[in-house]
Amino acid sequence: MSLPAMAAKHPNLVINQQDVADMKQAIAQPGAFQDAFNATLERVDQGLTQTIEVPVPQDAGGGYTHEKHKSNYQQMYDTGIIYQLTGEQKYAQYVKNMLLQYAKLYPTLPLHPKRKSSNEGKLFWQGLNEAVWLVHTIQAYDFIYDALTPAERNSIETGAIIPVALFLSEQSPRTFNKVHNHGTWATAAVGMSGYVLDKPLWVERALYDLNLAKKGGFMRQLDELFSPDGYYNEGPYYQRYALMPFVTFAKAIEQNEPQRKIFQYRDGILLKAITSSVELSYNKLLFPLNDAINSKGIDTIELVHGIAIAYGQNPDPRLLDIAQQQDNILLTGDGLKVAQGLDKQLRQPYPFVSSLYRDGQQGDHGALVVMRQGGKTDQAMVFKATAQGLGHGHFDKLTWQFYDKGNEIVSDYGAARFLNIEAKFGGGYLPENNSWAKQTIAHNTLVVDEQSHFNGKLKTANQHHPKLAFYASQQDLTIASASIDTAYDDVAFARTLALVNIKQRNAVIGIDIMRVSANKPHQYDLPVHYQGQLIDTNFERQASLNQLSALGQHNGYQHLWLLATANLATLNTVNPLAKVTWLNDNGRFYTLSTLVNANSVQNSREKMLFTQLGANDPNMNLRQQQAFIHRVNATNHTFVSVIEPHGEYNPSKEYTLGATSMVAELTHHQQAELEAIEIRFSDDQQYLLAINHSSDTVTERTQSVININGQQYQFNGRAQLFGPISTIQTNESNNSK
Amino acid sequence: MSLPAMAAKHPNLVINQQDVADMKQAIAQPGAFQDAFNATLERVDQGLTQTIEVPVPQDAGGGYTHEKHKSNYQQMYDTGIIYQLTGEQKYAQYVKNMLLQYAKLYPTLPLHPKRKSSNEGKLFWQGLNEAVWLVHTIQAYDFIYDALTPAERNSIETGAIIPVALFLSEQSPRTFNKVHNHGTWATAAVGMSGYVLDKPLWVERALYDLNLAKKGGFMRQLDELFSPDGYYNEGPYYQRYALMPFVTFAKAIEQNEPQRKIFQYRDGILLKAITSSVELSYNKLLFPLNDAINSKGIDTIELVHGIAIAYGQNPDPRLLDIAQQQDNILLTGDGLKVAQGLDKQLRQPYPFVSSLYRDGQQGDHGALVVMRQGGKTDQAMVFKATAQGLGHGHFDKLTWQFYDKGNEIVSDYGAARFLNIEAKFGGGYLPENNSWAKQTIAHNTLVVDEQSHFNGKLKTANQHHPKLAFYASQQDLTIASASIDTAYDDVAFARTLALVNIKQRNAVIGIDIMRVSANKPHQYDLPVHYQGQLIDTNFERQASLNQLSALGQHNGYQHLWLLATANLATLNTVNPLAKVTWLNDNGRFYTLSTLVNANSVQNSREKMLFTQLGANDPNMNLRQQQAFIHRVNATNHTFVSVIEPHGEYNPSKEYTLGATSMVAELTHHQQAELEAIEIRFSDDQQYLLAINHSSDTVTERTQSVININGQQYQFNGRAQLFGPISTIQTNESNNSK
Repeated sequence: MSLPAMAAKHPNLVINQQDVADMKQAIAQPGAFQDAFNATLERVDQGLTQTIEVPVPQDAGGGYTHEKHKSNYQQMYDTGIIYQLTGEQKYAQYVKNMLLQYAKLYPTLPLHPKRKSSNEGKLFWQGLNEAVWLVHTIQAYDFIYDALTPAERNSIETGAIIPVALFLSEQSPRTFNKVHNHGTWATAAVGMSGYVLDKPLWVERALYDLNLAKKGGFMRQLDELFSPDGYYNEGPYYQRYALMPFVTFAKAIEQNEPQRKIFQYRDGILLKAITSSVELSYNKLLFPLNDAINSKGIDTIELVHGIAIAYGQNPDPRLLDIAQQQDNILLTGDGLKVAQGLDKQLRQPYPFVSSLYRDGQQGDHGALVVMRQGGKTDQAMVFKATAQGLGHGHFDKLTWQFYDKGNEIVSDYGAARFLNIEAKFGGGYLPENNSWAKQTIAHNTLVVDEQSHFNGKLKTANQHHPKLAFYASQQDLTIASASIDTAYDDVAFARTLALVNIKQRNAVIGIDIMRVSANKPHQYDLPVHYQGQLIDTNFERQASLNQLSALGQHNGYQHLWLLATANLATLNTVNPLAKVTWLNDNGRFYTLSTLVNANSVQNSREKMLFTQLGANDPNMNLRQQQAFIHRVNATNHTFVSVIEPHGEYNPSKEYTLGATSMVAELTHHQQAELEAIEIRFSDDQQYLLAINHSSDTVTERTQSVININGQQYQFNGRAQLFGPISTIQTNESNNSK
Repeated sequence: MSLPAMAAKHPNLVINQQDVADMKQAIAQPGAFQDAFNATLERVDQGLTQTIEVPVPQDAGGGYTHEKHKSNYQQMYDTGIIYQLTGEQKYAQYVKNMLLQYAKLYPTLPLHPKRKSSNEGKLFWQGLNEAVWLVHTIQAYDFIYDALTPAERNSIETGAIIPVALFLSEQSPRTFNKVHNHGTWATAAVGMSGYVLDKPLWVERALYDLNLAKKGGFMRQLDELFSPDGYYNEGPYYQRYALMPFVTFAKAIEQNEPQRKIFQYRDGILLKAITSSVELSYNKLLFPLNDAINSKGIDTIELVHGIAIAYGQNPDPRLLDIAQQQDNILLTGDGLKVAQGLDKQLRQPYPFVSSLYRDGQQGDHGALVVMRQGGKTDQAMVFKATAQGLGHGHFDKLTWQFYDKGNEIVSDYGAARFLNIEAKFGGGYLPENNSWAKQTIAHNTLVVDEQSHFNGKLKTANQHHPKLAFYASQQDLTIASASIDTAYDDVAFARTLALVNIKQRNAVIGIDIMRVSANKPHQYDLPVHYQGQLIDTNFERQASLNQLSALGQHNGYQHLWLLATANLATLNTVNPLAKVTWLNDNGRFYTLSTLVNANSVQNSREKMLFTQLGANDPNMNLRQQQAFIHRVNATNHTFVSVIEPHGEYNPSKEYTLGATSMVAELTHHQQAELEAIEIRFSDDQQYLLAINHSSDTVTERTQSVININGQQYQFNGRAQLFGPISTIQTNESNNSK
């Protein structure tokens, strides 16, 4: 198959000739685009003063030759763009000279001396880096193509481009065909090279796998690596990383073969992947789920490219809201469109709303649920009912997070890693990432008998996933429910989370119902990893004063210091409620109120444990995260909790308001597939959340009736909040029976 | 003595009639002043809808009647201003009605049922609050004076103003005459009342004490409570609180008796107190020295008033820089001048520079030294060589703090207190404030034999102070030295701190020399309380893995968990250097490099201890502050350390630079009164800081010569940095001898 005439134009990958013309105009005028150009120009000019160095590969990731080849490809790319925008030969010459050196070196190279066991490279220890090199280098080559003589092109292609492309494809078939981020980079590199070198077979292979059998390749990756909602199963941190080769190659495909309509493919899956990446964030930081560095934000370079490319496809002014927060103008045609959109003040607020992101290729491997109330720095609740997420996944089925007033309140640890800090285990994942961060106890979900889900075995974990029972969202109430019975042999658990705006109280609360069932008794731990300073509990705690011991010995428990214990049997009222209040840096108080099993008065094994991370951490690799853990011994048990933001602590202005929780009583009702939580506040206002768990189809027209205290509550759909409820009415109903 | 005719005008305390006319004009135009007016108007209108409540006093601080009388005086003040600015009678009526109720209630009141043992009140448990009430109320009365009938004035004065003023003066002579913040409020209240009621005797008493004997009174407070540099001995947190009655009464004096030239008094001490309050801050937060809430900023209301009043006296455009950061427009004549200055863009940057603030009435009770390099969020070093500071002072002689890139890096704990959070010990100072926060080990200074300075006895501590040996500041080098020999029976210590800009390295470092001398051996602990995550040490640490124990039993040691220990004898090189590196939230690394006593190889009792706060803290009142403590057993010992900011950690952009310290070697030379520190960096560049400790007068013309490694270093003044030093030259000098 021959390519259309467009292929003969250069550049024509991510940037085309019209883009160059538009950008040349833009850089002549003062503004953000000119500033971005000047910044890159300065960097590029600085690079021109230094001797070109293309060293024989020796070092692993982070080492000298590795970093040099990385900075080389970046420099070639930037210098190539500057050549296009200025027309000055010295820039083309710089890129040419470097490429010629690569053309001389590459054919001589064996496999890298420090190569990894799988996905090997030559320039780099990993083929992954080689592919990233080629994605940049082929664009640089495309930029200077017209400045080269045919002989120079021949040298560069023969010595560098073709050998690298063949190495990444024919000579690395497993990686090339892999439906995985490594495969995406490889296919992107080879496919883009195919466009520039006019090798249509390379493009076909990149799209459909080495043998064109469609068992791998870019299209298959688009099919499998994203759920129908654009969710990438390894989680948000890796999703944004994986996005880069996807959007880059897609843009090149769109430029060269628009008839493929790649951005419409699979119902616009690429654009969904971009926007969901942005939405899996709070106050500009990505949700730190699975292996993730918790300071990674939506301004990460991959999302800058993603947003620009998405805007180029469809100039939705809400994308400009994200672009503005990213504050990073790209020197591309799409980057220019974004800059112009911002200059013209077209920006509209990006809607951060409650959303469901199904997991799995068919969307039936659980889901990530994001609940929001108010504005983008008001309340958000994350409910992770997803599949494992492969090697970077954590053993954290049905865990949750809570955000409010700009901060993480109930938190996810993310990964134990100090990126690129040599002294911290070479800058890679620390041993504590396995021994702590992946373990279930590090998350806000059920731990049975101090064992992690799936016994901490990745292979088992990859084979199972939770079942999303339902998700429903209205203006003031979002609710979801999911369950899993494969995380433990004898234990099944189902969690229902709801984010509720109680308008009459000008208050938002979160409700958490964790139902655990088994055939024999177990120890159930339900942690809450909180951010802030502990203020109060409504029960006494026995603190370890002079000595601390680790809470346990395995599966993450060995890393927890036990600061204090509380015997919840001391709360001997009818519906005992254990309350823990903490104060976050955002100046707001948070109270978690949780039902205590009334039987535990006799049982007296129900406890609240207060812990701090740091035991068995000889290298001080872990942060001093505090948590409280609700521990129950039972066969079947339902944990019912409410998280309640309240009050304000303003020491600078010297006032404190509302430091005390107003949740006075919780009552839980279960009637077949209907469930209700009654909440009485300390001013005697009462509310009731009614829930329909039916496994039948439930729509907004489905009616249910639940009878509580002689009062009938009729509601539509999955859930409804009633209240304030008059207690007098209830008594009258009782009396009139 | 009769007052000039001006006294008959109303208002004429902090705001006069011209101010009112100017403000009336300003609120008619859009802008910050109009916005401030509207905000107050809204609050005041809201207050008018509520029933006036003047309850019989019952509750202590924080309780209902206490808070009600507080909000009453604030409401009267605000409503009075709104009356002046709008002329609408309803506002005057509101204030009148409330005052009439007070006039009815007050004469019936006994001493407050919950009164404190000293400084009693009637409306409030403390006379202090009564004085604050009168300061606000007399201004409100002054605002509505012209709207009252003579009979109404008589009722209010007879029933409320006069009884309160007499209670605060004649009936509370000890407090009225006290040279203390409580006395300032009392004298301000009575003096201002004297102006409004045309009672010149009250003014005289307020200024010169109850008997006009000048043993107390406002003028004596001005003489004694501030050092000649405007430093208030209780420290920055209480200085800004004390400022309020000072600037308020002074403004009233200036309006009514300008011939007193109160703002020129004692060489402009009031204006110095205001500006030094602002300068004792970093990145908008006050230095948290002594008892202090560490989130208190320069935007605190007292400093808003202080800056406005200072600007009214002398419209220095640099004050507008502070006003802008405070973002709080006052509805006063001075507040209007500030708003207009900001509108006209007159603002100039406020100079945050190295400064010396002497302590003590004569300025000879030690000093607070503030060293700065670069801009206001670059480096700052605080050296606290002050006196005790009375009851709110800490046992922290010669402690230091370090700030950089916007953050506190080597920190001061401040107070253990959660202001106004009932659950935290009623919101007052916690027991841990005494058992931890005041103790020496909680600070970054010498602790001998695990005893606090002055054995933790306030009375003893109040009687002694360090001696400031010298302070010298040039553009790239600030240095100070101080000593004390009364903190311990057998131990004297002297500390020299320097902040050095090494321009050729584009680097700023801090140098710390702590010289300890005694007659017999002791255990010397030198802690560094650091902010951030520990990254690395150049020595092995033995971590407590499964169990933690408290470091000691008394004087704050009982609150420290011992995380790890390092035996520094393992560093067996010629000039062994122990290095600790941590990473702050600001994305920068910090390394403290400290000389290890070469003898300790045999001695092997020299250790580094790694601690975390939290032991013996049953109520979780303490923050999890980490520290490392250099422990030496010796008779005489000199600690020599360098703190070095370096590198950048940017996980969001995924790069790390300069994570490793470049300080390779330190050598300390002591030659009589000359001292030198040689620093060799890992790229072999060498520098030398030469210091002249002579107790004679040393000026910029004083020459000294120190001979190091056969090289002569001639320098002027107290200190000079030499370098980079050529090592070849040194060898040649050696050879040519």
